[in-house]
Amino acid sequence: MGELNVALIGHQFMGKAHSNAYRQVGRFFETNLKFRMKVLCGKACTEELEATAQKFGWEESDCEWERVIDRKDIDVVDISTPGYLHHPMVIRAAKAGKHIICEKPLGRTADEAHEIWKGVAGTGVKHMTAYNYRFYPAICLAKEMIDSGELGEIYHFRGRYHQEWIMDPQFPKVWRLDKSVAGSGALGDLGAHVIDQSRYLVGDPVAVNGVLRTFIKERPGGTVDVDDAFEATVEFENGAIGTYEATRFALGRKNQMRWEINGSKGTLLFDSERQNELLVNMGNSTPGEHAQGFRTVLVSEAYHPYWQHWWPHGHMIGWEDNFVHELLHLLTCIREDKPIGPRGATFEDGYRCAEICDAIVRSHETGRRQEIEYRTV
Amino acid sequence: MGELNVALIGHQFMGKAHSNAYRQVGRFFETNLKFRMKVLCGKACTEELEATAQKFGWEESDCEWERVIDRKDIDVVDISTPGYLHHPMVIRAAKAGKHIICEKPLGRTADEAHEIWKGVAGTGVKHMTAYNYRFYPAICLAKEMIDSGELGEIYHFRGRYHQEWIMDPQFPKVWRLDKSVAGSGALGDLGAHVIDQSRYLVGDPVAVNGVLRTFIKERPGGTVDVDDAFEATVEFENGAIGTYEATRFALGRKNQMRWEINGSKGTLLFDSERQNELLVNMGNSTPGEHAQGFRTVLVSEAYHPYWQHWWPHGHMIGWEDNFVHELLHLLTCIREDKPIGPRGATFEDGYRCAEICDAIVRSHETGRRQEIEYRTV
Amino acid sequence: MGELNVALIGHQFMGKAHSNAYRQVGRFFETNLKFRMKVLCGKACTEELEATAQKFGWEESDCEWERVIDRKDIDVVDISTPGYLHHPMVIRAAKAGKHIICEKPLGRTADEAHEIWKGVAGTGVKHMTAYNYRFYPAICLAKEMIDSGELGEIYHFRGRYHQEWIMDPQFPKVWRLDKSVAGSGALGDLGAHVIDQSRYLVGDPVAVNGVLRTFIKERPGGTVDVDDAFEATVEFENGAIGTYEATRFALGRKNQMRWEINGSKGTLLFDSERQNELLVNMGNSTPGEHAQGFRTVLVSEAYHPYWQHWWPHGHMIGWEDNFVHELLHLLTCIREDKPIGPRGATFEDGYRCAEICDAIVRSHETGRRQEIEYRTV
Amino acid sequence: MGELNVALIGHQFMGKAHSNAYRQVGRFFETNLKFRMKVLCGKACTEELEATAQKFGWEESDCEWERVIDRKDIDVVDISTPGYLHHPMVIRAAKAGKHIICEKPLGRTADEAHEIWKGVAGTGVKHMTAYNYRFYPAICLAKEMIDSGELGEIYHFRGRYHQEWIMDPQFPKVWRLDKSVAGSGALGDLGAHVIDQSRYLVGDPVAVNGVLRTFIKERPGGTVDVDDAFEATVEFENGAIGTYEATRFALGRKNQMRWEINGSKGTLLFDSERQNELLVNMGNSTPGEHAQGFRTVLVSEAYHPYWQHWWPHGHMIGWEDNFVHELLHLLTCIREDKPIGPRGATFEDGYRCAEICDAIVRSHETGRRQEIEYRTV
Repeated sequence: MGELNVALIGHQFMGKAHSNAYRQVGRFFETNLKFRMKVLCGKACTEELEATAQKFGWEESDCEWERVIDRKDIDVVDISTPGYLHHPMVIRAAKAGKHIICEKPLGRTADEAHEIWKGVAGTGVKHMTAYNYRFYPAICLAKEMIDSGELGEIYHFRGRYHQEWIMDPQFPKVWRLDKSVAGSGALGDLGAHVIDQSRYLVGDPVAVNGVLRTFIKERPGGTVDVDDAFEATVEFENGAIGTYEATRFALGRKNQMRWEINGSKGTLLFDSERQNELLVNMGNSTPGEHAQGFRTVLVSEAYHPYWQHWWPHGHMIGWEDNFVHELLHLLTCIREDKPIGPRGATFEDGYRCAEICDAIVRSHETGRRQEIEYRTV
Repeated sequence: MGELNVALIGHQFMGKAHSNAYRQVGRFFETNLKFRMKVLCGKACTEELEATAQKFGWEESDCEWERVIDRKDIDVVDISTPGYLHHPMVIRAAKAGKHIICEKPLGRTADEAHEIWKGVAGTGVKHMTAYNYRFYPAICLAKEMIDSGELGEIYHFRGRYHQEWIMDPQFPKVWRLDKSVAGSGALGDLGAHVIDQSRYLVGDPVAVNGVLRTFIKERPGGTVDVDDAFEATVEFENGAIGTYEATRFALGRKNQMRWEINGSKGTLLFDSERQNELLVNMGNSTPGEHAQGFRTVLVSEAYHPYWQHWWPHGHMIGWEDNFVHELLHLLTCIREDKPIGPRGATFEDGYRCAEICDAIVRSHETGRRQEIEYRTV
Repeated sequence: MGELNVALIGHQFMGKAHSNAYRQVGRFFETNLKFRMKVLCGKACTEELEATAQKFGWEESDCEWERVIDRKDIDVVDISTPGYLHHPMVIRAAKAGKHIICEKPLGRTADEAHEIWKGVAGTGVKHMTAYNYRFYPAICLAKEMIDSGELGEIYHFRGRYHQEWIMDPQFPKVWRLDKSVAGSGALGDLGAHVIDQSRYLVGDPVAVNGVLRTFIKERPGGTVDVDDAFEATVEFENGAIGTYEATRFALGRKNQMRWEINGSKGTLLFDSERQNELLVNMGNSTPGEHAQGFRTVLVSEAYHPYWQHWWPHGHMIGWEDNFVHELLHLLTCIREDKPIGPRGATFEDGYRCAEICDAIVRSHETGRRQEIEYRTV
Repeated sequence: MGELNVALIGHQFMGKAHSNAYRQVGRFFETNLKFRMKVLCGKACTEELEATAQKFGWEESDCEWERVIDRKDIDVVDISTPGYLHHPMVIRAAKAGKHIICEKPLGRTADEAHEIWKGVAGTGVKHMTAYNYRFYPAICLAKEMIDSGELGEIYHFRGRYHQEWIMDPQFPKVWRLDKSVAGSGALGDLGAHVIDQSRYLVGDPVAVNGVLRTFIKERPGGTVDVDDAFEATVEFENGAIGTYEATRFALGRKNQMRWEINGSKGTLLFDSERQNELLVNMGNSTPGEHAQGFRTVLVSEAYHPYWQHWWPHGHMIGWEDNFVHELLHLLTCIREDKPIGPRGATFEDGYRCAEICDAIVRSHETGRRQEIEYRTV
């Protein structure tokens, strides 16, 4: 295999973050990834797009995503667009034999996500849903602790994602508030992260029961047809119970993805507003010690996930650096032909999250607990 | 009205806390309460009971609760017993024309709680359910802020109560794990506090949907027939949505009653493990100031609820001191013939909590969202 | 020995706190202390004094401290007055053979404190300086950890006491701002606590070097002749170095006595605004565990100092409850003829703190490091 | 002016951080900086050096710093070497007319630092001491608040820098523990940051008084001749007093630069282990509001310093990103011929820090308070 040529579609928030990660990954990690940031794809072939491409570090720019995907020299397609474009882009890329990373939520509905997954199944291309929280060192440490049995049997997972950015009733109806473009509101945009985290750390849910709410229905620009917030209970395969929550109406919360896991031997708590910390309580794990409590673990030791490549302990990394780990994983899996999962989220993982989101919507509509059945391909 | 004679039934955990509060209330507050700690009632007329009565500050002890309630010289009956005794005691006390404070949960079921409420309705006696969290200064401050409109419209209430004391599978089946005695498990014991808080601060729920779990069913002493934990979603009359949760399986959480309320103008957060603090976020309420965030309010200023009677600011009070406020309220309402609510919880409040708890159980059993109808008397 | 009769001189802030502790000690602790709250002594024999005495739980009131001290039936004298009265009161009480507890600072100067100590030396009476922080459970836990060697060799002690109550330039010159009455300002009132803590936990200082400041010299009521704040470095006998600080000009700090101790095996941090917590870092004390950090220890377990007599864990005690421990210690030492130290501070401890305070003043005046020599009696 | 060619000398910790910042600055900020990462200079011309240069993004590598400095095409020299090399490198670079950024501490002594400053004075080259903390958004916000008068008169500055990396007695004598190479220990390496922060935020000290300590003198590799820790008091020109501290013996502290500033109207607290937060207490600045306290300000709003170029609020930046701001400042000042100060630290600032460090050493040696006189050039 020669150099991997990457095409990135989308250059807004996620496009900026992904570009940074592609640029940085080889600067910090000892890799033999050999890839090129080939082309950045936007909506219109403007000077601005070309300038952005240069600023972000891409060799070229283009404005026809079909053309970009079809290019023979492109090996990897990175889809960082609004949700309604995921399906056609993935299908085309898969047919063209490209490896694909796609932003979450994978599809606007479980059916669409399943179609997307089906589109790549059997093709042999690597597929990854961009659930970037999986690559936070603190969360990787949590996963290591759970997988090694340090937490014992898991009893509870409670996850939530809180923001505040649309609380002003005069905030307009942007694309994230439009069902046909985004698929859903807080549920699909924020809740999906929480759901993926629960699956990553605890396992698959078997039933959910939830309620959705749109607090401000009329906004400049039109009627909002997605949820502003949701609350749900969840039951896991292993017997644990918990909650899923997301809202864009939590004043003071800028970007708080927070979960708490209680096991028979330990409790863990993560809060994205302090992304480099993991709160850990191991009970009276050390007999005779009378000074037990919640530990604020500064996740920055050389023995912590990914940290040997960064800075001396206590010199904390930023939000954008987690994307470096994510794309390191993607490119390494492609380069070395390794499976994306279980560390990375595959399209199957992306589909399963969508299935759970849909079940929450159905429970809201029917007032009934929904057992979840996961489809295969 | 002459002196009020109080009888306390129960001398374990709550009996000790109530006794302390009766002793202390006149030491700190400028009152004309004129009451006497007349008699402490226990199960058996032993020397130990008499010694406890003396230690706790009661003039006499007795072991027949019927006799104690019937005493002509008793004006106030304080019922601090396990739940199954609430009904007969309240009924008898109400018939005897005594003012009553009863520990929560008021009844083991909504029906029983309704019977209890019915028992006092129309008798003219004061009745109070001992939801002591209502009397924490930090929570009173929260209530003042909400009532004055400082938080704007309320969008979310999320409340939980976490403990860890029965996580050891060898911990025996005590009375709190026996349905016939306690009524329910984490739901009625802990969740009821959270539910009462939500009603106190946000308003009545109109629908709930929950799931219960007993993680360890067989224990030394028998089969556990109450819940170890529950999770529920809740919809309020005013349109807010949120969650109720309680568990006795949250390792590291000693006694954490925690809620978070998001309004259109502010967010509040309370955590009983730091009972003298209120976290407050008022958004960008002060234009031009670029230093907004969550404030850790040390609730101890002379202008904070109840604080002018305690210590200089920063000299924090303890858990037991909140009971002083509770009994101050009870005795003042009796002495001055004022209504117990809305600051204190009446038996109607106690009944409504039970109605909500029952609805959560029904939703668990049926998998269906339960709309709540509150009965009258 | 029959019943111990206690006389309390002073009924303001400390008088209120001591009265509460005398009332409460027998209610919580299994003791055979047999003492009576005999007489409360104030400045004038008014109805108000008598009312206060009753409210605080004292059998009688009086307004002549000499007469009170001389009473044959008084066994214990509790001196909770401003500093300038400590010397005459202690001398008279010691001569009368009374056991004595005296508020800090013991004397206004090292000379005066030495005189006071000399006054009791050889008389056989118990003498205790009321350094109440020694009786906080979190601090007792810290002491246990240090004494057992869990912290290893101590390298640093940094202590500070911050308040804000005189920041308003219009705040008048009260007695605490008057050198002839109080002895010194932040140094003797607040710094003395910090100094006592360092001696209690780490050992005796051998040298200090400090600077004092009076930020607002003219106030309504006169010229302030005590310090508003001081900063000092300290060298300990065991080689550790650190700082002492106190100020009444730390906006937002209500009553923050905070110290941090670094040892070769552990770090401890205490903050009085969260008095029931101890922050503990034991390094990588548990090999193989990758989740080390500062633990927030909720000091409320039955195995924590004093806690078996209070409440279930997580039901936190208040500031006033630490005085219960202090007076329990005093009365127990008297009753059982045990030494006040090292848990309690004796008058020698009170004197040594004064010696250190004086050395800090001298270093400020001379700009020179002061080696400290402790006198004997 | 054409393109600016930068040469970086040093490729260890600081070299890596500076390289990253040069690479990233143009990716995030809208600039017309037009500079090239021309050459990375190390000790030996090895393949490893060349590989590092490529990895870090430099066009060339070299191993003769004199040759690099003398290159006609080099405009900016970045000196990220141990302290003993700063003097010869700066002198040569200044003579060659290069703009210079030099790591702190500028010189090993005040004399040396003064020589260095003298070397650039009058040459017209831009000179900057790399006190990177000045470019943390939270600290810039603090500076804005102080400069605008929001904090009122400043009463206290207390700063400290705590690490733990040499606590193991078997840790060898590395260059940072060698006086001839590093100049001093914790004082110059860590304390210098604290001192610079105090000058940046509060103003110049006029007197200091300190004590130094070397806890472990003999290590594998030789005798340690620098300090492990120091404690000092400080008096500022404006009347404020405070402390400076640094230690490499604070178990559990990975990299904690922490200061607290008390003013007549506000208190600020910064802690580098939570670098994106600023704790702010404005007293009762908003009359009528009963919910005042320390605010945890998440410094990530678009209106916060530098933040409009990063991510949406709540998506926090990392330690390394602050260097981007630092080098943005340097390159902008060169490009636009603007003064480095007061935001950036000049060589005069670097010299003044050295003067203060020396005064602390002298006070330690003499036991006497040292008034500080700042030299000119």
